[in-house]
Amino acid sequence: MNTNLVRYVLGWVFVVLGIMLVPPVFIAVALGESDFVYFGLIAVSCLVLGFVSSRFKPKKTQMYAREGFVACALTWILMSVVGCLPFYLTGAIPRFTDALFESVSGFTTTGATILGTDRQIEDLSYSLLFWRSFTNWAGGMGILVFLLAVITPLSGQSNMYLMKAESPGPIVSKLIPKLRGTAGLLYIIYTALTVLECILLLIGGMPVFEAVTVSFSTAGTGGLSVRNAGIMAYDGQYYLQAVITAFMFIFAVNFTAYYLIITKKIKQVFKIEELRWYFAIFIIAVIAIGLDLTLNKTYDSALDCWHHTAFQVGTFISSTGFATADFDLWPSFSRTVLMLVAIIGACAGSTGGGFKVSRIIILCKAVVKEFRMMLHPNSVKAVKMDGKTIKDETIRSTSVYFTIFVFIYIVSVTALSFDKMDFTTNFTAVLATLNNMGPGLNRVGPTQNFYDYSIFSKYVLMFDMLAGRLELLPLIFLFNPACWKSK
Amino acid sequence: MNTNLVRYVLGWVFVVLGIMLVPPVFIAVALGESDFVYFGLIAVSCLVLGFVSSRFKPKKTQMYAREGFVACALTWILMSVVGCLPFYLTGAIPRFTDALFESVSGFTTTGATILGTDRQIEDLSYSLLFWRSFTNWAGGMGILVFLLAVITPLSGQSNMYLMKAESPGPIVSKLIPKLRGTAGLLYIIYTALTVLECILLLIGGMPVFEAVTVSFSTAGTGGLSVRNAGIMAYDGQYYLQAVITAFMFIFAVNFTAYYLIITKKIKQVFKIEELRWYFAIFIIAVIAIGLDLTLNKTYDSALDCWHHTAFQVGTFISSTGFATADFDLWPSFSRTVLMLVAIIGACAGSTGGGFKVSRIIILCKAVVKEFRMMLHPNSVKAVKMDGKTIKDETIRSTSVYFTIFVFIYIVSVTALSFDKMDFTTNFTAVLATLNNMGPGLNRVGPTQNFYDYSIFSKYVLMFDMLAGRLELLPLIFLFNPACWKSK
Repeated sequence: MNTNLVRYVLGWVFVVLGIMLVPPVFIAVALGESDFVYFGLIAVSCLVLGFVSSRFKPKKTQMYAREGFVACALTWILMSVVGCLPFYLTGAIPRFTDALFESVSGFTTTGATILGTDRQIEDLSYSLLFWRSFTNWAGGMGILVFLLAVITPLSGQSNMYLMKAESPGPIVSKLIPKLRGTAGLLYIIYTALTVLECILLLIGGMPVFEAVTVSFSTAGTGGLSVRNAGIMAYDGQYYLQAVITAFMFIFAVNFTAYYLIITKKIKQVFKIEELRWYFAIFIIAVIAIGLDLTLNKTYDSALDCWHHTAFQVGTFISSTGFATADFDLWPSFSRTVLMLVAIIGACAGSTGGGFKVSRIIILCKAVVKEFRMMLHPNSVKAVKMDGKTIKDETIRSTSVYFTIFVFIYIVSVTALSFDKMDFTTNFTAVLATLNNMGPGLNRVGPTQNFYDYSIFSKYVLMFDMLAGRLELLPLIFLFNPACWKSK
Repeated sequence: MNTNLVRYVLGWVFVVLGIMLVPPVFIAVALGESDFVYFGLIAVSCLVLGFVSSRFKPKKTQMYAREGFVACALTWILMSVVGCLPFYLTGAIPRFTDALFESVSGFTTTGATILGTDRQIEDLSYSLLFWRSFTNWAGGMGILVFLLAVITPLSGQSNMYLMKAESPGPIVSKLIPKLRGTAGLLYIIYTALTVLECILLLIGGMPVFEAVTVSFSTAGTGGLSVRNAGIMAYDGQYYLQAVITAFMFIFAVNFTAYYLIITKKIKQVFKIEELRWYFAIFIIAVIAIGLDLTLNKTYDSALDCWHHTAFQVGTFISSTGFATADFDLWPSFSRTVLMLVAIIGACAGSTGGGFKVSRIIILCKAVVKEFRMMLHPNSVKAVKMDGKTIKDETIRSTSVYFTIFVFIYIVSVTALSFDKMDFTTNFTAVLATLNNMGPGLNRVGPTQNFYDYSIFSKYVLMFDMLAGRLELLPLIFLFNPACWKSK
């Protein structure tokens, strides 16, 4: 393995982290918060470390799969550790594990929190709250994608592996031929949509600080909030909650669709199979839960019923993890459907989490193909998606992905069971973290938090969050000795 | 599809069912129970229908996959319906759905029961109790396997499909070249082991009727019991419970091992990879749970602790579903490990249920292969098991099997959630039925039963039991219109 190349990438990551820490410094200074000292110190340290390390360019800059995976995994661990320092050093979150948990949860866009028991979210300073939501935004599109967009020496086509390792979904559609252009375009679309949401929230009368942070969390489909009550704080403000619903849905759409819209190939958008399934799943889930709530008279008015249903389905399918209602009190069928939707997750190539709609499609098609083969052993009909043949390789790797996913799920639930919580809590805690969603049910429900889990369990859940965000493989490769061998 | 051939097979199934119903008639007559009338009537009807139908041999006797799957699925539905009639007609179980549930549970060797709330198990007559346990035994090795062993016209090599459809596990090892010989040999080993267990239980002082019925249920890894308290009724009788532990373990072993022992190829037994994994899983689970119970001081004596641990791991890995202790009261780590063991299940080619150890091995090897391919894209190292290369086809179909398994699991849990039971109950109810185990946790725990589920849910669970026993495919093909098309 080319460790020098990995070191070089990490150097640039330090630089970006240093720059990312500048806005909170300004906010702290502007509002007279003492936290500016810590933010400043960490920012300067990162910049110094980064500039030194990124000065020494490695001799060989050709990147292979192993370097891509390892650099990606280490980048995210580094980000998490640096990201937790403001919480820890300012004393806002006194225990290191908790601070790290909050940081991992932020960057991986999970939105699970340990705040709300010992300390309340509102106890944090504005600069820390801003930083917390900003991690959601940065983690949504990814730091490496950002690096690829702006750092010339990293923009070589061989660094496709870095992007592959960080971007969600089984296939990275090659939007435009140049890697640098693709990465840049993704960030432009991402920023534009975030700004649009922010403006719409401001129009609805949301205070500026809240509008900005909520937009960050929605865009990254993260779900961290600056208020203890989360989006329930805007109860009755249908416009605001509807805007958030719409944008959760929008950010969980494959970004290829937006590229096609920009380039006026709108017809092609409707041909994206994943998008059609995504719409269908959303609508079916809304109808199923809406009817269930109506029949069970969970809410007095039909408006409340369907409003909360749409919001909660949006938050689960996009793995954002916001809540406008305590869905843990909903009938058990509705809760089960929500969990199901969370497992399926968002579109590939979006900022959302979960197993991804396109993987579900590929698995379904593989099943259908297998049935056909059983009845007609000589059938040679290929499996197609969006009109193109899916390679056997893609089907195989999707199946393997599925196996690892379930395997990690089972091991995690088993590991959590040492804590003597109930099975539903453990099962949904893993669901919430591995799918980067946020809240689960029972003791990790929308009005609860992850504070009560043991230190061991919190590390398990952090692993799940990182594994979920990086789609399992980079983290696993990090622990694979074969990957570290020099050729 | 050759429906005439399917009709012919079902004719023979009627004959076998008629013969199977004779022993209960004798028991009822001998003990002066009025139930003999019903058993007699059903037996005669089956025999008449069977002899008439099996007289008309179809012109084409060549069997293909579709006929194999459909005949198998219909056989099991037929068995279940006929098997429930004694419970229903005698009035012992007043509701038809409940009677059918008990019959499906018996034949599929699940051992889930609806008795214990409205009616107690001890309220049933001896003839009915015998019949109930006998369904466990017959279902364990399978009726079609029995047919292949004794009915000459069905013993053609093309009927391999029937055996494939009914036998558990991804690969039917060709024990001996002739199909009829294989099927016969399986039944001889099966009967011999059952008799051996029965003798050992009698030596331990168990009453004859109980020894016979417990042996039936252990052999089929079914777990139905003639006493409400199940095997807890023998509390403190360590010898009896230890014998049952040993035989649960034995019946969950791949029967190929016994064939090799009979033919004195004992060295080869140790080379069966599945067997080594099966042993390892058993031992690891026993150590993990034993330590957990010890540390939590669940039992006063070390003997009780390890005795109950071994029994419960045996019952979960073999999917028998007996219980010597209320494991629902065990610490949550132990309960999670038990569930895990139940999902993994027994060896292929045994009477046990679950996902099967060999499938787990194949999936693990596929994952390792995929990792290797990522690091060395040109690697051509084949996946091997027991020294032989596993075909890509087997890996693919195992992955597809896994997908369908998880899919059915998720849909079932969702369907059950209409009943407003808690998530743990629903999750473990599906686990208990799809893996043919029997009891789950919470409201379907070892001291509870399935009575409280709605009629709809009971049909879902029956589907799961049949799908689990027949390994998903036959039932799915039954609902696949393409399968019914004539060529």
